[in-house]
Amino acid sequence: MYNSVIWIIILILRMKKIEHIGIAVKNLNKSNDLFKALFGESHYKIEDVESEGVKTSFFKCGPNKIELLQATTEDSPIAKFIEKKGEGIHHIAFAVENIKEEISRLQGEGFTMIHEVAKRGADNKLIAFLHPKSTNGVLIELCQDIRD
Amino acid sequence: MYNSVIWIIILILRMKKIEHIGIAVKNLNKSNDLFKALFGESHYKIEDVESEGVKTSFFKCGPNKIELLQATTEDSPIAKFIEKKGEGIHHIAFAVENIKEEISRLQGEGFTMIHEVAKRGADNKLIAFLHPKSTNGVLIELCQDIRD
Repeated sequence: MYNSVIWIIILILRMKKIEHIGIAVKNLNKSNDLFKALFGESHYKIEDVESEGVKTSFFKCGPNKIELLQATTEDSPIAKFIEKKGEGIHHIAFAVENIKEEISRLQGEGFTMIHEVAKRGADNKLIAFLHPKSTNGVLIELCQDIRD
Repeated sequence: MYNSVIWIIILILRMKKIEHIGIAVKNLNKSNDLFKALFGESHYKIEDVESEGVKTSFFKCGPNKIELLQATTEDSPIAKFIEKKGEGIHHIAFAVENIKEEISRLQGEGFTMIHEVAKRGADNKLIAFLHPKSTNGVLIELCQDIRD
């Protein structure tokens, strides 16, 4: 019984769904039109994340979201990504219930965190990225809703 | 009233959620271990898709899935992708209710389809890919459950 409760708690703490996919684009306005045509529905918000040098827009797709990211500074990670790889999928974000516990669990599994402590990101979230060298080249973000 | 019904039908036909994200990997066994550590849960199935020259494994993540793809032939699209870009995210698949209608709608919006007619893919699905040149460099798959 005690073991079952621990197991349920552990499962709750883990990844619940794909929260969003981040896509690097050169021109947010043009890409907003393109993804509106794709989904048949407009983006529902635009947000500047000055600390990251990006302007983002969000589209809903059922339980998931698509986040388009345009660089606003030359040294933004998105500017560097596009320079190296061109426009395309930049990262996958997984929703977690408790980001602190999840970072700790993943470090215990041998994954390398870019952020060992969660920080504030777009869309009212606490976020932390795993290093793609430890995840088959996939840039993975963990995100937890900020509860006020 | 008539317009509302048409509008609801159109919305139902469109993209319902991210069905899965496809990730190109060099060694499926190694990556199965890695993603098991990431999700805290094993893959739930392995499937060979001979027509595409790939072996795939599937992980659940709430309402979504992660599909790992390893090339089984030298001229497989996955082998070419890894040669060009390395391991990493290969495509996003969106669940649709009626793939034929969705292909037709997207062509009407100016998107280029790789498959103008849906074909049978992994995981008991009818699938069709959009050309990434028309979608900001993102390889997008549509998929519809096959109803027997």
